[in-house]
Amino acid sequence: MNSATGRKPTKQINIGKVIIGGGFPIAIQSMTNTKTADVEATVTQIKALQKAGCEIVRVSVPDRPSAAAFKDIKAQIDIPIVADIHFQADLAVAAIKAGADKIRINPGNIGGPEDIAKVVYAAAAADIPIRIGVNSGSLSKQVRARPASTAEKLADSALENIGLFEESGFDNIVLSVKSSDVMETVKAYRLLSAKTDYPLHLGITESGTLETGAIKSAIGIGLLLAEGIGDTIRVSLTAEPVHEIDIAKQILQALGIRRFNPEVISCPTCARCEVDLIPIAEQLERHLKTHSKLVKVAVMGCVVNGPGEAADADIGLAAGRGKGVIFSRGLAVKTIKETEFFAELIKMVDEFEVK
Amino acid sequence: MNSATGRKPTKQINIGKVIIGGGFPIAIQSMTNTKTADVEATVTQIKALQKAGCEIVRVSVPDRPSAAAFKDIKAQIDIPIVADIHFQADLAVAAIKAGADKIRINPGNIGGPEDIAKVVYAAAAADIPIRIGVNSGSLSKQVRARPASTAEKLADSALENIGLFEESGFDNIVLSVKSSDVMETVKAYRLLSAKTDYPLHLGITESGTLETGAIKSAIGIGLLLAEGIGDTIRVSLTAEPVHEIDIAKQILQALGIRRFNPEVISCPTCARCEVDLIPIAEQLERHLKTHSKLVKVAVMGCVVNGPGEAADADIGLAAGRGKGVIFSRGLAVKTIKETEFFAELIKMVDEFEVK
Repeated sequence: MNSATGRKPTKQINIGKVIIGGGFPIAIQSMTNTKTADVEATVTQIKALQKAGCEIVRVSVPDRPSAAAFKDIKAQIDIPIVADIHFQADLAVAAIKAGADKIRINPGNIGGPEDIAKVVYAAAAADIPIRIGVNSGSLSKQVRARPASTAEKLADSALENIGLFEESGFDNIVLSVKSSDVMETVKAYRLLSAKTDYPLHLGITESGTLETGAIKSAIGIGLLLAEGIGDTIRVSLTAEPVHEIDIAKQILQALGIRRFNPEVISCPTCARCEVDLIPIAEQLERHLKTHSKLVKVAVMGCVVNGPGEAADADIGLAAGRGKGVIFSRGLAVKTIKETEFFAELIKMVDEFEVK
Repeated sequence: MNSATGRKPTKQINIGKVIIGGGFPIAIQSMTNTKTADVEATVTQIKALQKAGCEIVRVSVPDRPSAAAFKDIKAQIDIPIVADIHFQADLAVAAIKAGADKIRINPGNIGGPEDIAKVVYAAAAADIPIRIGVNSGSLSKQVRARPASTAEKLADSALENIGLFEESGFDNIVLSVKSSDVMETVKAYRLLSAKTDYPLHLGITESGTLETGAIKSAIGIGLLLAEGIGDTIRVSLTAEPVHEIDIAKQILQALGIRRFNPEVISCPTCARCEVDLIPIAEQLERHLKTHSKLVKVAVMGCVVNGPGEAADADIGLAAGRGKGVIFSRGLAVKTIKETEFFAELIKMVDEFEVK
């Protein structure tokens, strides 16, 4: 563990222009859900993901037309692109030739050692990394049959495959061991982190829709990152992929690992609250999502924690009956009416100079 | 740490008919945001919270009319009710006389030792517990001025107050040390858990609206519960309180600590997916939230993890082009059309017998 950062030191791996591991920032990934052969739709989705903050994008390559489209997609985007491959090693080779910045293969279904050798040879020639991406839903029959926990099966499957790669002299490797069970996933990554220094790609697979998947991902990814484990994250949601970026950013920000947007501290309201705080907090949060200024804004409903939180924040509002006191850098600066809350807070964020 | 449960052993505390600590299930709390003096509105909200799964409810008592209403509220509900008190020890005494099942006081603002003694005396006479609820936004001036981290200030403030209580022979105590900063909160609870065996009430205070507050709470509460720390939880959201129960249940379920509803495993979809999976997963999740049968349902978009996850679940769907294979207890039982997915899955959940 690096005592300054609290993070497990890992090998540095280059994915196009993005570096993971080696103490570099934890990168945010997502994956397209368009048809890859539909170049226009895929490029449009990747651009939307990039705009939202996606730093590495993965694209499924299930067939030849998808592999053929890969080159055209790559030519039109400027974030690293990863080809997601299952069943057919030849498609991995085709994607590498088409310019993939990384290949993800699944040891549970990619075939035998000769198939893996084919992919490793092509990746080595192109000098790109391979992610060994193990999933609980696609463990090989042999691994599945072992008398072990899901976590052990996941970690062992990854470790056995690392062995095959290293025998070929290939160590440009990223690893993942995902399960739809949060705690099995956490245990699998802990086992893996204790045994290898390759960077780890974290995620809870098949975690569900936006609402439940966000909670499962926050807990699983959050637990691991808080222990210093993990170098890149992908929140998997049954939802438009752009939501995955928002949740990933929120997880990193809540842990204090990276900051992206203003932070809003707002109280749950109770019988003490004399203003209609919920819509104001919601409106403020929505608005500030579009801001990149790293300010902390507190919106508090009463005098209990209000002045304290408002004073601790960069900008604060401690509301009373139909009015509120505005704080700036810890000092009460003025009293305003409830109808002015939103406009005043936005104005103060706009004018605030981060030191 | 209890090696069987992985939980820190804590003192058993009775809050009305609900027991926390001592290995009892982690209880879910929420708090009303109606005017407490409005008995009808408050009772209506408490009943809605109870229906959603709230096991202990807290009500703010900011003034005499609220204390007067407390007795009428208690007479109309059947979950334990906690009086939340700030600034005025007399209101705590009034709430205890009105039948409060527990009192929460805030050492940062309740007054001096004589004020605390007054509350302790009344609580001891009524044989009810007191929560010493410290918040970063309302630390006393003296504590705030110390050269220490927020986590240390929170934990020390709680520990110093325990001392005052124990000197009076009172040990019917629950503790909380909440900050709006997730990691400071986690650190404060770790410090506290290492030094006392009183049960801990967990929460991230002022965590924001439903969307961001759910993530912060999932990470903070999740981290602590995964370490075996915590006996009751309250998710604080700037939202209708009933959402707090839903998020609390999801956190406990994701950690495998308690189960409440069917679990839906659903894939994020990608270029491989040949059906419109997102709305089906959303519709299914919404529908199953009303179910209490503890089944695991997998809704998967393709053949990669589809058959594996579908077979691991109680009921599964592995979709292909416009159709899907239904699994029951690991076995493929039939192939159905995409239009039949939702109805068939619901029917199977209804008919499934949990063993």
